[in-house]
Amino acid sequence: MTRLVSLATPDDPRIDAYRVIKERDLVGRGGRFIVEGRTVLDVALSPRNRFALESLLIAESRAEALAPLLAQAPEHVPVYTASQAILDGITGFHIHRGLLGVGLRGQEASAAALLAGLPERALVVVALGITNHDNVGGIMRNAAAFGADAALFDFASCDPLYRKAIRVSVGGSLVVPFAREGSAEALLDLLATNGFELLAFSPSGTTMLKQLVRAPRTALMVGAEGPGLSAAIMARARTVRIPMAGGFDSLNVATAAGIALHHLADI
Amino acid sequence: MTRLVSLATPDDPRIDAYRVIKERDLVGRGGRFIVEGRTVLDVALSPRNRFALESLLIAESRAEALAPLLAQAPEHVPVYTASQAILDGITGFHIHRGLLGVGLRGQEASAAALLAGLPERALVVVALGITNHDNVGGIMRNAAAFGADAALFDFASCDPLYRKAIRVSVGGSLVVPFAREGSAEALLDLLATNGFELLAFSPSGTTMLKQLVRAPRTALMVGAEGPGLSAAIMARARTVRIPMAGGFDSLNVATAAGIALHHLADI
Repeated sequence: MTRLVSLATPDDPRIDAYRVIKERDLVGRGGRFIVEGRTVLDVALSPRNRFALESLLIAESRAEALAPLLAQAPEHVPVYTASQAILDGITGFHIHRGLLGVGLRGQEASAAALLAGLPERALVVVALGITNHDNVGGIMRNAAAFGADAALFDFASCDPLYRKAIRVSVGGSLVVPFAREGSAEALLDLLATNGFELLAFSPSGTTMLKQLVRAPRTALMVGAEGPGLSAAIMARARTVRIPMAGGFDSLNVATAAGIALHHLADI
Repeated sequence: MTRLVSLATPDDPRIDAYRVIKERDLVGRGGRFIVEGRTVLDVALSPRNRFALESLLIAESRAEALAPLLAQAPEHVPVYTASQAILDGITGFHIHRGLLGVGLRGQEASAAALLAGLPERALVVVALGITNHDNVGGIMRNAAAFGADAALFDFASCDPLYRKAIRVSVGGSLVVPFAREGSAEALLDLLATNGFELLAFSPSGTTMLKQLVRAPRTALMVGAEGPGLSAAIMARARTVRIPMAGGFDSLNVATAAGIALHHLADI
């Protein structure tokens, strides 16, 4: 049985990480991130989660129903419980279904180290300039669903460990190895050095996705909705098109990545 | 040049449709719906939009920049303009980028009439029990992107003309002919009567999507995330699987529909 620690006040210092902190500070400097909700906690407490958990915080009213799930938490991870009144006093985050946790980023691998560790046949999703948390979360969900080996984000993209990105990813952000660093150009250099064929997905791409036979090492690149990938990136890559009905606005970028992954993944 | 009608007060009765009205009432009884934002208005003012517009309401500050777009509005559609202060007084809806419109549902075709009007080769998306506005919007976006001939929703699904569904569809809800009525069973009966092969998408499906050769008349059925399609529906259909990496939660339902449409559409 897990160790429930009942809280008597919302000011308890042991739950400082859950408090009114700007998420930017929590994610950036603190080395921590927030997980929430049953579906994400299922992943966070499974062996697929790459990150350590620091603690969990749940509503007292849910403790009994969640006991089987919480039993999967490592012994050293405290599970704090509190009444709804006390939870409501911890105003940093809306408590999504009475179930929150704090994860630890730990030592993060560089993009170079990540690529160096991949097998000879590998599929990497590369997201460039994706500033929308839903889209980054959707990309991580799809990368996990299709077993992508890794995901790379340029620094202009938002962090896959932002709270909303994790929630939209339904835990995919905790599963797929990723790095977020540098410019698009630097990431492309690194991928080319590591023998990856660069695929640039765009409505103006030349190769039709259904006709594409992938290279052993394949990098699937997508850009932000609207601007898409830059001309400089397109010029360095094999450009690929998902055909669409005339005149309609293009697909959501996470959906486009999902369609591409379905075609390219080995599963 | 379009006819701009400048408003001097937020209480002007000509813009009653934009006011604090429960969306349920507006959409249900009023026969109206709200469109908002530049991307959706682009579609709403194009020939692809199936619906009539009643009026537009824009921020004065945007009138000049939007003049070329507004010039596409039919002569009889008034374009109201107001200062931001007055717009803020119209509290029914947050004014998304200073650009709103009211559309008219008009006479809606029944599912039976819709199917009767389709060609011998046709692809119909069928959404059953999809109560999430984002997912209904995402399905309509993908249906438009891949040129689906029609979309059917059971009455348990939410309305594609809800404000958020239209926004997420980036106008797809205005383009793809749809009907929303009755039970899943009644829709399946109707599709079968009209010679459609029923495809039930599910992680437990038998046929792999990539191996599937579609029938001339194909109905692509998806259910809500979590429960999915019922056993009764699965039993009446050919079941289809999108393969996924072991143990990960399934795809978002709109993404799954997008992947299926990419495989099945003729474009």
